[in-house]
Amino acid sequence: MYQFNRIISEIEPSRSVTLMAKAKEMQKEDPSVINLSGGEPDFATPERICREVTKALKEGDTHYSDFRGNADLRARIADKLLADNGIVCTADDILITPGGKYAVYLTVRALINPGDEAIWLTPGWVSYPSIVQASGGMPVAVHLDHEEEYRVHREQLEAAVSDRTKLLILNSPNNPTGKVFSKEDLKEIKDFLMAHPDVYVLSDEIYESIVYESYTAESLAADPALSERVIVINGFSKSSAMTGWRIGYLMCKNQAMPVIQKLFQHTLSCVSGFLQRGALVALDCKEETQKMREAYSRRRELLLKELGDVPGMKLFTPEGAFYAWIRFDVKEDSAAFAERLLDEAKIAGVPGDAYGEEGGTFVRFSFAASDEVLLEMAKRLRCFMEAQ
Amino acid sequence: MYQFNRIISEIEPSRSVTLMAKAKEMQKEDPSVINLSGGEPDFATPERICREVTKALKEGDTHYSDFRGNADLRARIADKLLADNGIVCTADDILITPGGKYAVYLTVRALINPGDEAIWLTPGWVSYPSIVQASGGMPVAVHLDHEEEYRVHREQLEAAVSDRTKLLILNSPNNPTGKVFSKEDLKEIKDFLMAHPDVYVLSDEIYESIVYESYTAESLAADPALSERVIVINGFSKSSAMTGWRIGYLMCKNQAMPVIQKLFQHTLSCVSGFLQRGALVALDCKEETQKMREAYSRRRELLLKELGDVPGMKLFTPEGAFYAWIRFDVKEDSAAFAERLLDEAKIAGVPGDAYGEEGGTFVRFSFAASDEVLLEMAKRLRCFMEAQ
Repeated sequence: MYQFNRIISEIEPSRSVTLMAKAKEMQKEDPSVINLSGGEPDFATPERICREVTKALKEGDTHYSDFRGNADLRARIADKLLADNGIVCTADDILITPGGKYAVYLTVRALINPGDEAIWLTPGWVSYPSIVQASGGMPVAVHLDHEEEYRVHREQLEAAVSDRTKLLILNSPNNPTGKVFSKEDLKEIKDFLMAHPDVYVLSDEIYESIVYESYTAESLAADPALSERVIVINGFSKSSAMTGWRIGYLMCKNQAMPVIQKLFQHTLSCVSGFLQRGALVALDCKEETQKMREAYSRRRELLLKELGDVPGMKLFTPEGAFYAWIRFDVKEDSAAFAERLLDEAKIAGVPGDAYGEEGGTFVRFSFAASDEVLLEMAKRLRCFMEAQ
Repeated sequence: MYQFNRIISEIEPSRSVTLMAKAKEMQKEDPSVINLSGGEPDFATPERICREVTKALKEGDTHYSDFRGNADLRARIADKLLADNGIVCTADDILITPGGKYAVYLTVRALINPGDEAIWLTPGWVSYPSIVQASGGMPVAVHLDHEEEYRVHREQLEAAVSDRTKLLILNSPNNPTGKVFSKEDLKEIKDFLMAHPDVYVLSDEIYESIVYESYTAESLAADPALSERVIVINGFSKSSAMTGWRIGYLMCKNQAMPVIQKLFQHTLSCVSGFLQRGALVALDCKEETQKMREAYSRRRELLLKELGDVPGMKLFTPEGAFYAWIRFDVKEDSAAFAERLLDEAKIAGVPGDAYGEEGGTFVRFSFAASDEVLLEMAKRLRCFMEAQ
């Protein structure tokens, strides 16, 4: 017998949020702790974006705004989705939300009835299964194999689908692995979806602008055969170093949109109009975004070079996002190992089992940190592993 | 058979949000429309508060912040609750949320299991029953009588309670009536609660600082016999003219707090830290808040004077908040009447049935508008009513 809401009582707290808080506390006592557990750019928001907010505040733009989001921002996002991602949509298909996470929650809650199932691919972001559970649904994990570099096979999806499957959750570039879906992966997924016309897709594209070498993150929403069924999640946190702003959006062209909007109206009213003016400027900051991407790319090279020959571990080559996803040849499970790494080497990362990784001992480290910090981390990691 | 989430599909869209949007659209085409449908101060946010945000942005305070809210803000809110409201609590009992509405949602979702009941008093805020429904619960309305000036009777609460009752939702000063609970009302409610120890209380105190004459809004959370069971909702929107900021908070001293926090982590991560710095300054702006209160008070007097002898209508004397709650002696229901008022007199208000008022034709008008606008509204209303 539960005193409070049963399903929320049963959900695990967000381990990445909890760990980030713990590592920050530790850093206060011991500044030598290297905290790479977070999932956010180390850059501050570009100045131009901040200046626009100052201007908006001076103009008294502090009242309720359109619950769907500022009209000019929504129109501009529709343009961006077409230009960058090949997605055809209008401003009416966009809803501005306080962060991409809330866009995921709104979508899942609007689509799922109690007992419905949502397929997610593991390793995957910690909050997907929790959000599905909080919505009364059943998360169904499809585990991808690290030895195949997380390729997607249609047969795995077919094995997971049932007549209660309402939703397939996708995330490319992926958190935590940094994997970007290949053309072959997308074909497998599309073939599956064409055979199951009642399954909707939540495509979380929050890392879409952070890709390396010749990798590109393609959206299934760009495919005319699927675009009505795909709800796209994106935002400004990762591309424009705006995590603390809490501004994201969703794009939805089907009849789930009025259901999503209703839940939004009754829970939030609107997102700060004056912050949205900053977001509009962010869409102009191509140069700043490019510079940040170059920095992430340089740091990725640095880690690939420094960690390539460390014994007893293997770094998965990041294709996108800013995470070093490392497999360690140790006997402990990832939670115990991450804790030892924090205690002995003073490096904080998030253990792989938080992301549903079952195939070995993995830890996720953010490389959205300075070169100096990353060099020190590599040195400590080498030293630590050589002593094993 | 529902394609999407059944309970959210069945909920009505927020009528006040929808109406406010419609009236704003009309105003663009016809600037003579007087829009009093909103629920927000007509003042811009005080300058000092805005300046702090500019400073925070310049300092690069744009990263994720503590998911519970900034520690200094939570500590300061605990102080404020003690000083202003007699509520004993600590910073750990506070959670900062994107607006008071989300604090209501979190509380209701955390407390309710499917089929549980929540009692709310009507007339009451449009979103309470919708939020209860969205959480899988059953809203149970206790209708207060306008002829008794909305006095609360324990017998009514007893008649509404069942073994599924989990929550009693209170709102004083009340939106839409402007009523503030009297000592007698509070005694009736307390007697009821003492007889039903399993019922929690959501006390929405968002208008707490806007009261007139000698009325004071007392919190049940100040009562040691009840304080563990009362979850207090408050925020900065109404007291500091910060509706567009979306910053509110809840105070909870019982074990619902970890459940609330978990849902918060998985849906929102945090509220903008740099906006919270503005909110901290807002708690210092006693003078600005006092000036706004004086302006509301003057406008209230103006309406009481101008509308007191208009035939065919009666203005309920506002004890708090900034709404003119008017009963019209007409045969139409409130929705039809409000529509005619908008078409013929060009005044937009929210019809009483949106708030569950069943005892007559009521319309809610905001008096958070300039004296000129209110004088013109009074003139039009007199003219309109004299022609009936």
